[in-house]
Amino acid sequence: MLAAARAAFAERGFDGASIRAIAATADVDPALVHHYFGTKDKLFLAAVAAPADPDELLPEVLATPADARGAAVVRMVLRVWDGPARPAILALVRSAVNHEWSAKLLREFLLAKIIRRVVGSIDMPVEERDVRGALVASQLIGMVMTRYVLQLEPLASASPDELVAAVGPTVQRYLTGDVDLPG
Amino acid sequence: MLAAARAAFAERGFDGASIRAIAATADVDPALVHHYFGTKDKLFLAAVAAPADPDELLPEVLATPADARGAAVVRMVLRVWDGPARPAILALVRSAVNHEWSAKLLREFLLAKIIRRVVGSIDMPVEERDVRGALVASQLIGMVMTRYVLQLEPLASASPDELVAAVGPTVQRYLTGDVDLPG
Repeated sequence: MLAAARAAFAERGFDGASIRAIAATADVDPALVHHYFGTKDKLFLAAVAAPADPDELLPEVLATPADARGAAVVRMVLRVWDGPARPAILALVRSAVNHEWSAKLLREFLLAKIIRRVVGSIDMPVEERDVRGALVASQLIGMVMTRYVLQLEPLASASPDELVAAVGPTVQRYLTGDVDLPG
Repeated sequence: MLAAARAAFAERGFDGASIRAIAATADVDPALVHHYFGTKDKLFLAAVAAPADPDELLPEVLATPADARGAAVVRMVLRVWDGPARPAILALVRSAVNHEWSAKLLREFLLAKIIRRVVGSIDMPVEERDVRGALVASQLIGMVMTRYVLQLEPLASASPDELVAAVGPTVQRYLTGDVDLPG
């Protein structure tokens, strides 16, 4: 079931994949998928092997004022990576770098579960959402790669507060600032 | 010889590693290392399996005015990744994510061959160099991960000019702008 779910989410995205089709591919009854995983949401988290549930982490971020959203997102990302889930997230990153299907799955997870919700919570022209979201992702992904994978100093040893102060304004600019946007 | 060189550069850095010590570890004469690889510089590039030589790419970047250096660095990174070396660079990234020794080697390559030279070419307090360089790296690494590994749209299909316009100002701010620096 998980293999079928991974293939479906990677190929058709979170919205496009259906439990019915996943069950058919896995040659089981859809009720069995529901029994084991509950909602499509939970099946998706299991398929990605997501080490943290954005549903539990995002509400606090989205409750901050729009002009403090950049700092709040950076802080959330650091809290997850500095916590016990780090080895599991590193495994996700490794898999995404090694396998294209895994990169697709991680991309869909970041898009559907984090990026779209963060940019969707801010008042902006609809056509700017994807590109502002991708720019935010570029800075956040680079921050975690630099700090946790390359372990480049002084970012590897910087405190969360210091990183929020240095990187937060970049994320804020991508979210709400004056950016010469592609497209 | 290459295995000994990789271990030495990863453990002691580019400046700390000597051809004499590498030759001793590999149990060969230092003259043989020189014969095969020429300078320590060339040996380092071979050890990292560097798909491009920063000595050939950086002079053009460093010749730009300091206030256009951010855009120039972004443009250089995109030119290398959009060129024929992409599979080789992707292999480097994969290796760095999979093996800690490889991450150390890539970090040392980025530091000694690119980052320190870019920040060293700009007038700033010495104690700001490492942190500004690491912040620049965070945005550039994130840009390439987002565009080439995750292939997140619209950044994956954006033109180099569009990316320079959107991301260049961030790199410029990290290089010369008003940043609340860690430490």
